[in-house]
Amino acid sequence: MSKQEIAVQAGGGCCQPISEAALDPNQAAEGATVFKALSDPIRLRLMSIIASANGEICVCDLTGQFDVSGPTISHHLRVLREAGLVDCERRGTWVYYWPVPDRLQWVSALLSIPEVAATR
Amino acid sequence: MSKQEIAVQAGGGCCQPISEAALDPNQAAEGATVFKALSDPIRLRLMSIIASANGEICVCDLTGQFDVSGPTISHHLRVLREAGLVDCERRGTWVYYWPVPDRLQWVSALLSIPEVAATR
Repeated sequence: MSKQEIAVQAGGGCCQPISEAALDPNQAAEGATVFKALSDPIRLRLMSIIASANGEICVCDLTGQFDVSGPTISHHLRVLREAGLVDCERRGTWVYYWPVPDRLQWVSALLSIPEVAATR
Repeated sequence: MSKQEIAVQAGGGCCQPISEAALDPNQAAEGATVFKALSDPIRLRLMSIIASANGEICVCDLTGQFDVSGPTISHHLRVLREAGLVDCERRGTWVYYWPVPDRLQWVSALLSIPEVAATR
């Protein structure tokens, strides 16, 4: 998925925060796909390492941080990419990953609630 | 889980936004549990209906909105409750559900990114 496609998807079809309006089935299906990508502890850690990196990070700097095989890391990265949460580019030997801020912002906004409600 | 326990859990152990710091394995495990609860389209719709209700909602007003059985809805509601996202109380025949704003705010903040990053 290209950055442009993700931007359209993130900005276009969806959504008011769930605290303001119930999701329709299509919106729920799209949101659930993103949450499923984040529902594995290794993927969520990977996502946080990529999101907190300074711009982008080499896959060679990701694999050493986990007690699982390289192919397993690659699988998890593919799931994050297919959910539109990260994107990547191969340069020579290595693949470099970066977060897709629009997508993260979209999913964060989906769960946001007004301050007044938070103090209930 | 009581409201008080959830408040302690939501406010205490975790986390900086993933755009600011990588999660440690314990934080990732807790976050993944919440995202897993939101990773099913029916559960996410249920969560949105409860979160956008005016305060609370009777389970009797939830079941009619889905083409699945009452016990299936009950199962999904239990998963949301165990993740700390909703709480409930039985009154007479019916159970009433409401959102846990602190928990929603916590998970929203986990994915939040600074505006400047979002314009990348």
